[in-house]
Amino acid sequence: MAEDKHTKQDPAEATGRRRRGSGGAEARRALRKDQGNVQLPYIRRKIEPYNILNEEGLALIEANADTILQEIGIEIREDAESVELFRKAGADCQALDDPQKVRVRFPKGLPRSIIQKTAPKSFTQHARNPARTVEIGGNNTVFAPVYGPPFVRGLDGERRYGTIADFRDLVRLTYMAPALHHSGGTVCEPVDVPVSKRHLDMVHAHIKYSDKPFMGSVTHPLRAEDSVSMAKLTFGDKFVDENCVLINLINVNSPMIYDATMLGALKVYARAGQATIVTPFILSGAMSPVAQAGTLTQVLAEVLAGAALTQLCRPGAPVVFGVFASSMSMQTGAPTFGTPEPAMVIYGAAQLARRLGIPFRSGGSLCASKLPDAQAAYESAQTLIPTLMAGTNFVLHAAGWLEGGLVSSFDKFIMDVDQCAMMQRFAEGIDLSENGQALDAIREVRGSNQTHFLGSAHTRANFESAFYRSIVANNDSYEQWLAEGQKRTEDKAHGLAEKWLKDYEAPALDQGVEDALGEFIAKKKAMLPDAFS
Amino acid sequence: MAEDKHTKQDPAEATGRRRRGSGGAEARRALRKDQGNVQLPYIRRKIEPYNILNEEGLALIEANADTILQEIGIEIREDAESVELFRKAGADCQALDDPQKVRVRFPKGLPRSIIQKTAPKSFTQHARNPARTVEIGGNNTVFAPVYGPPFVRGLDGERRYGTIADFRDLVRLTYMAPALHHSGGTVCEPVDVPVSKRHLDMVHAHIKYSDKPFMGSVTHPLRAEDSVSMAKLTFGDKFVDENCVLINLINVNSPMIYDATMLGALKVYARAGQATIVTPFILSGAMSPVAQAGTLTQVLAEVLAGAALTQLCRPGAPVVFGVFASSMSMQTGAPTFGTPEPAMVIYGAAQLARRLGIPFRSGGSLCASKLPDAQAAYESAQTLIPTLMAGTNFVLHAAGWLEGGLVSSFDKFIMDVDQCAMMQRFAEGIDLSENGQALDAIREVRGSNQTHFLGSAHTRANFESAFYRSIVANNDSYEQWLAEGQKRTEDKAHGLAEKWLKDYEAPALDQGVEDALGEFIAKKKAMLPDAFS
Repeated sequence: MAEDKHTKQDPAEATGRRRRGSGGAEARRALRKDQGNVQLPYIRRKIEPYNILNEEGLALIEANADTILQEIGIEIREDAESVELFRKAGADCQALDDPQKVRVRFPKGLPRSIIQKTAPKSFTQHARNPARTVEIGGNNTVFAPVYGPPFVRGLDGERRYGTIADFRDLVRLTYMAPALHHSGGTVCEPVDVPVSKRHLDMVHAHIKYSDKPFMGSVTHPLRAEDSVSMAKLTFGDKFVDENCVLINLINVNSPMIYDATMLGALKVYARAGQATIVTPFILSGAMSPVAQAGTLTQVLAEVLAGAALTQLCRPGAPVVFGVFASSMSMQTGAPTFGTPEPAMVIYGAAQLARRLGIPFRSGGSLCASKLPDAQAAYESAQTLIPTLMAGTNFVLHAAGWLEGGLVSSFDKFIMDVDQCAMMQRFAEGIDLSENGQALDAIREVRGSNQTHFLGSAHTRANFESAFYRSIVANNDSYEQWLAEGQKRTEDKAHGLAEKWLKDYEAPALDQGVEDALGEFIAKKKAMLPDAFS
Repeated sequence: MAEDKHTKQDPAEATGRRRRGSGGAEARRALRKDQGNVQLPYIRRKIEPYNILNEEGLALIEANADTILQEIGIEIREDAESVELFRKAGADCQALDDPQKVRVRFPKGLPRSIIQKTAPKSFTQHARNPARTVEIGGNNTVFAPVYGPPFVRGLDGERRYGTIADFRDLVRLTYMAPALHHSGGTVCEPVDVPVSKRHLDMVHAHIKYSDKPFMGSVTHPLRAEDSVSMAKLTFGDKFVDENCVLINLINVNSPMIYDATMLGALKVYARAGQATIVTPFILSGAMSPVAQAGTLTQVLAEVLAGAALTQLCRPGAPVVFGVFASSMSMQTGAPTFGTPEPAMVIYGAAQLARRLGIPFRSGGSLCASKLPDAQAAYESAQTLIPTLMAGTNFVLHAAGWLEGGLVSSFDKFIMDVDQCAMMQRFAEGIDLSENGQALDAIREVRGSNQTHFLGSAHTRANFESAFYRSIVANNDSYEQWLAEGQKRTEDKAHGLAEKWLKDYEAPALDQGVEDALGEFIAKKKAMLPDAFS
C-alpha cells in the first residue's frame, strides 16, 4: 500500500474529498456554519509584534548566550552520533567523567551561522485537507490544542486518567474549533494503551478524525520513525520527503543538557525533512536562573545548539525556536502561570527568534488552577495575550490546558477556543478602509441630529460582522440570567462541548489510506511488547 | 475654619502625620507589610507602549476628526456660556430649531491648537499624604477603583443596592490595595443618601478613610463646587488654587453632544485649576459607528472640543483624553466587554492622545459577567492588559467592576488588584543589570555539572523577590487542594476582603480638618432638600 503512494503528489488526492457531500452531511455542515463552527484559516497578523527589549538588550543577551556556549557549552548524553556531527562542524567535544556524557563547546557564532545558512525563516506544514495547510513563520500564527496531560476532565466532569476515547474526543473538538488551526499532538495521554503502542493510535486518531495538520511522536526514535511512516501512508513517500507534514516537540533537558531520547527523535524528523520545535522547558528558578535576562540567555544558547543540529542532519529542515516558560513558587516549588515574568520571557524570546531568523513557538492558555474558574481565566489570558502580541508563530496549549498541564479539560477547551478566536480577530488590526472610517455614518447621524447609530445605513450594513460574538459569554440582563438558572461560564462551555461532539462528523478519508494505516498499526502492535512505563 | 487653611502650603501638614505611630499601629503596619499590603507608588513604565496604528492611520483619523468638527461640529445643550467661549475662540455657532441647542463648528485645527498651547502634557495630582501623590501623564500609570455602580456584592455576598457603609468599605479596601494608587470617586452609589447630599458624604469618605488622591462630584455644577470647597478645607485654599488635588470624570453625551450638567462641572473644575477627564462614553453601534476607525474619529473630535473648552476656561488647567469603549451585542443591544474591538479602540485612542500631547484615560477590569467567574476574568484581562500595554495614564475601574458596571464586587475587587499588581511588575520590563543577566548563575550551575538552580547563590540571593506572588491564585497540588476543601478563587478573594477590612486602620487626619469638613457638610445638608433622583 505504501508503495502506491510514491506517485501521489497532492495530499488532497489522498483524502478522498470526492467522497464527501451526501445531502445529510451538507445540511449538517450548513447548520454548523450557522452555529459558529466556520473554520478560520491560520492567522496572518496585520499588527506589529510587541518588543519588550531594545536593540541593546537583545545584543547583550545574544553575546551572553555566545559566551555560555563557548565557555560552558551543552552536555550531550548517550548520543555519540550527535557529538560527532558537532565535532565535524567545528565544536570542541570533551567527555566528562562518565564517557556517555560529553561537553560540547562552540566557537562564538558557530551555531548561529549554521542555522542562518540553511534553516527556513518560514515553512509550510501540509494538512491532508489543503484548505487546512498552515504557514509557520513570518507574520503568521497557528493555534494548536493542549499537549501532554495524563488526566482529563471530559463530559462526565470527573478528573480521571485519559483514555484513547478521550484522545479522540479532543481531536474531534479541535477539528470543530474554528480558531484552532492545528490538531496538535498528545492532546491527552491515552493511558489505557501501552506506552509502547500509544503513538500509533494517537497519530492514527489525528489522521482519521481530523484533516488539520498534526504532530508526530517524540518519546522514542522508533516512534518518530513510525510517525513518519504513517505520514507517508497518508501523503505519499515522495510528498513527505519533499514537504513538511509533521511538526514535533523536542524538549531540552534544561539547563543545557540534551538526552538521547529527544536527540534521537530530533534526528529522525530532521532527516525526514520534518519540522522540529527545539524547546527549552523552563521552570525559572529550577531549570534556569530566577532572572528573565538570564533565562533568555540560557534559552537562546540551548536553542542555538539544538537548532544547529537539525541543520547538520539535513540542511534546510524546518526548525522552530521554542520556549516553555513558567515561574515557580519559591516557597513550595510548584509551577505558577499567568504571572508577569513568563510573559516577559515570551516577548523577549520571540524577539531573539526573529533575529535568529527562524519561527517561534511559545505560550498557550496556561494556568495552575484546578478548575476553569477566574484564576484559570486570568492566568490563561495573561499567557495567551502576550503570546499573540509577541508574534508567536506556533502556539501549543492554546486550548484545554488546566491544572499546570496535568489535565485536559473539555470545558476549558471551549472557553479557550473562544479566546483564540478573539485573538485572531484582534490580529486583523483596525480596518482603515472607507467603510472602517465610517465618516458617512457620522455625517448621516449627526447631520440629521440623530442621537444614535442603531438605525444608520452603516450600522445596518455592518452589524452582523461588526463585533466578535463570544460563544460562551453571557451578556444578558441580571434578571434574565437569574431566570435562566444563574449559569456560570463553565456550564455554557460544557453544553457546547457536548453539542460539538454530537454535531461532529468525521472528514472523509480515502479507504486505501485507511486500510494501509490499519494494516501498519496492526503489524506494529503485534511486534511491539506491551509496556506501560 | 476654611480661612485658616489659606496659609497652608504643604498638604502633609494638613494630614496630621505627626499624630501617627502608636506602638500598636506600628506593629499592625509591620504585620500588614508581611501580608502583602505594602503600598506601591504609581507606575513608572519602563516598557514602550504598543502601537496598533501606524503614522498613516493616525494622520487619517486626525484629518477625519478635523473634517467632522468643521462640517458637523458638536452640539451644546443649554449652556450659552460655553457657546460664547467657543465663539470668541473662533468657532461658528448656530442655534438649531431649539435655541437651547447650538451647533458649534470649528475651523480645521483650532481645538488642537488651543489645547497644545496651554494644556499640560503631564500633571501632579496631590494626595493628602505626599507619599501617595501621583503624576498623571508621560510614562506613568495610575490605577483607580471602579466608578459608578448602583449595586454592590459585599461581604454578605448578596447583590443589593449600595449604601454609604459599602462606599466606605470600598474606600477602605482601596486604601489597603497595594497596586491601587488612587482612591477613585463613586466607588458605588450610596443609594441610602439623598442624591442631593450624596456627594458630600462621598468626598468626605475619600478624605477621611484614605490618604490616596481622589475624585470630585460631577453630577451638578454646585456639587463640583462643594467638592472643591471640601478639597480646600483639606489642603488649604491657596494650595488648591495652585495645584491639582481633584480629578473629575466628564462624560460626553456621544455622539457629539455636550449637555449643561457635564459642561457645568467641567467649567467649575477647570476654573479651579483641577483636572478633568473628557470621556466619550461609547457603546459602539449605539453612540458611535460599529467600526473602530470611525469610533476613534468621533472620540477624537469629541475630546478635542471638550478639552479645548477647559483651556478656554483656564489656560493650563489639567485635562485628560478619556475614552470608555465597549462593543454591544447587535442582537440584544447589551453592552459586551473583553472583546477585541474595544481593545483596538483603547490602543488607537492612546496613540491619538500621545500625539495630541495630553494624558490618556481608559480601560480597567471591565466585564459583563454576573459573577467573578472565568468570563469575568477573561473579559477583565482582555481589557486591563491592553490598557497597560497602550500606555494608559489614568485607569478608572481597575478593580471591583462586575456585571457591566452595575455592581461593585468586593471579591472581584481583590482578584483585580492582584492583576493590577502583576501589571505593575510587568511594566518594569526585563532587568538587564548584571544580576538580571545571571551569567554567573549559569556558570556556577553548569560549570559544576549541577542540573538545577535551586541552591545556586544567585537563586538564594533573589528568590524572595524573583517572581510576583499572587494573593489569590492556588498553586497547590490537586491532592492538597482537595484536602483543603476545593476552594475557588472567589472563596480566597472573599476571605482576603474580610481580612483587609478587619486589618484596616484609618490614616490619621488633622482634627481641625476633620471638624471643618464636618461643619461644612452639616451646613450644606441642612440647606439642601432631600432628593432621591
